[in-house]
Amino acid sequence: MSKKATIYDIAKELKITAATVSRALNNNPKISEKTRDLVLATAEKLNYKQNRLAVALKSGKSNNVGVVVPFINKNFFASVIRGIEEELYPKGFHVIISQTHEENDREKKIIQNLINAQVDGILVSTSFTNENKNQLHQVLKKSSPFIFFDRVLHFDDISTVTIDDYQGGFDATEHLINQGCKRIAHFNVNQNIELYNNRFKGYKDALSKHGVAYNSDYVITLKSDMEAGKEAAEKLMNLPVPPDAIFSSTDNGLLGAVKYLQSIAVKIPEDFCVVGFSNEPFTQFLEPSISSVDQSPVEMGKMAAKVFLEQIESNQDVKIHKDVVLPAKLIIRKSSSKHK
Amino acid sequence: MSKKATIYDIAKELKITAATVSRALNNNPKISEKTRDLVLATAEKLNYKQNRLAVALKSGKSNNVGVVVPFINKNFFASVIRGIEEELYPKGFHVIISQTHEENDREKKIIQNLINAQVDGILVSTSFTNENKNQLHQVLKKSSPFIFFDRVLHFDDISTVTIDDYQGGFDATEHLINQGCKRIAHFNVNQNIELYNNRFKGYKDALSKHGVAYNSDYVITLKSDMEAGKEAAEKLMNLPVPPDAIFSSTDNGLLGAVKYLQSIAVKIPEDFCVVGFSNEPFTQFLEPSISSVDQSPVEMGKMAAKVFLEQIESNQDVKIHKDVVLPAKLIIRKSSSKHK
Repeated sequence: MSKKATIYDIAKELKITAATVSRALNNNPKISEKTRDLVLATAEKLNYKQNRLAVALKSGKSNNVGVVVPFINKNFFASVIRGIEEELYPKGFHVIISQTHEENDREKKIIQNLINAQVDGILVSTSFTNENKNQLHQVLKKSSPFIFFDRVLHFDDISTVTIDDYQGGFDATEHLINQGCKRIAHFNVNQNIELYNNRFKGYKDALSKHGVAYNSDYVITLKSDMEAGKEAAEKLMNLPVPPDAIFSSTDNGLLGAVKYLQSIAVKIPEDFCVVGFSNEPFTQFLEPSISSVDQSPVEMGKMAAKVFLEQIESNQDVKIHKDVVLPAKLIIRKSSSKHK
Repeated sequence: MSKKATIYDIAKELKITAATVSRALNNNPKISEKTRDLVLATAEKLNYKQNRLAVALKSGKSNNVGVVVPFINKNFFASVIRGIEEELYPKGFHVIISQTHEENDREKKIIQNLINAQVDGILVSTSFTNENKNQLHQVLKKSSPFIFFDRVLHFDDISTVTIDDYQGGFDATEHLINQGCKRIAHFNVNQNIELYNNRFKGYKDALSKHGVAYNSDYVITLKSDMEAGKEAAEKLMNLPVPPDAIFSSTDNGLLGAVKYLQSIAVKIPEDFCVVGFSNEPFTQFLEPSISSVDQSPVEMGKMAAKVFLEQIESNQDVKIHKDVVLPAKLIIRKSSSKHK
């Protein structure tokens, strides 16, 4: 691949200053039409591509970046958005947020709409799954750049930023086994969403590594809310042999389970251990405090923003595809600490 | 004022059907250019104004409504946004959200940016105060319609939707007095923000009505977070005569205070009663559960959306100014229930 042409190459060719070339390319009225035409012709000859970020900033136009999430009122997504803003705001980009409520049709419309509003990029945590991902791809192809974060789909032309959900699920389950738990239940949210499936795989592999039998009665798929968690826990405790621990892919579901267990006087962690996922703020201040897997949401947001900036700073015809995986961190609190 | 001209008046004048008039006004290709020109000329003669909402919907273009809030990760704002979406999404509007982090400069830029992106309206919970409100008004004047909700400013040309913060503060304080509390402290967040000031006034008036002396040592202004609440509670408990109750304008601040009181073995509600404001979800599931003033956020969002729709459905030259005040509802839980 030959070296990319710069404004210096154009300046050299025309024996003018780089500043003049820059002004000409940005339609500065101080530059004569003749010079401007010369610069443009030379730029074309040398196959020069303007850096889109630089153009956007110099043109002084407002730059919007769309962020699309299932819900804004989960601490996780709010924190990712904070990370995105921390990275993009100092560079002059405004973040506009939309929530899909996990409705695929709405997600498509929202994205189409952001494209129509001519945003400079869209960062999406999608509710589409592998089963219907092509429906979404049709919309995405019309615009660039696009970045998926957290809830991702894999397409050759779209970068992703995730955490290591598999390792998070594995570590949480192994920790429960190390606490002496023998019958570990699992709350799954949606098997068709890759990240939940990865946590589930981590759970199964940890059981298998330690020779703990997998019991499908102990795996419940539920909505990520308190009420669903209560019902699921009730179902588990009414089994002939109830479990002695839960690794939950949802902190909100686990909260309902904890409330149910407390209502029937099951002692946590003495009789029953629990570990959640997401490290929602309430997990810290509940009594007992709840162990959970932290997803480094602010870092995830910053990383997604950085991948976006790299794309916009590159030439339009250079395709960057990146899959960034950040570590998942198990935070151990009282709810799974049998041994001091 | 004369009656507004309708498409029926135009149809009658031209002896054609109203459907033809409508099609001509909306550039339907089935209508001949001659008819279209006739309709437009007659519309102008009769001073006919198209309903903007109808035009927007018929034109099939995507409609964006901007919502600007201090923070998206407070349950209150997330719920207001849900209410706005529930009202607007079925009418074909997309809600795009931005957060200001309570920075005035950022709020101005965000609003300017939404105007540049040609949104159909902007619903704002502002961080500006009466002291600097004119800075904001300069930006707002360029666009319409504009609606303030919750954190509002009063301008002749901008409608507002709030809850009755004064009554909320009054009811919370009177309830604490009725529980036998004698020395009621108050957590304020920002005296320059009207709603906090109204809650504070309600607090003072309830004390006064019941002959309880006002003590300025018991009033603390703090940031709305746990850490600040802990510090404030520590300060109060180190007074020569500490208070026996707190009415807090912030649930998050109160949470910190409760954690501090529990750490020094003060019993809630036996020794100390607390009431918060906002009815954040965690207030329900803490032990003890926390009394709080509910702000009907979903209803507030729906109302703000309705006021927006009324404005957009009216003719452009009809100015609608409305100040809607929704009731505040005290929710009594364990944290302030001395008497069963």
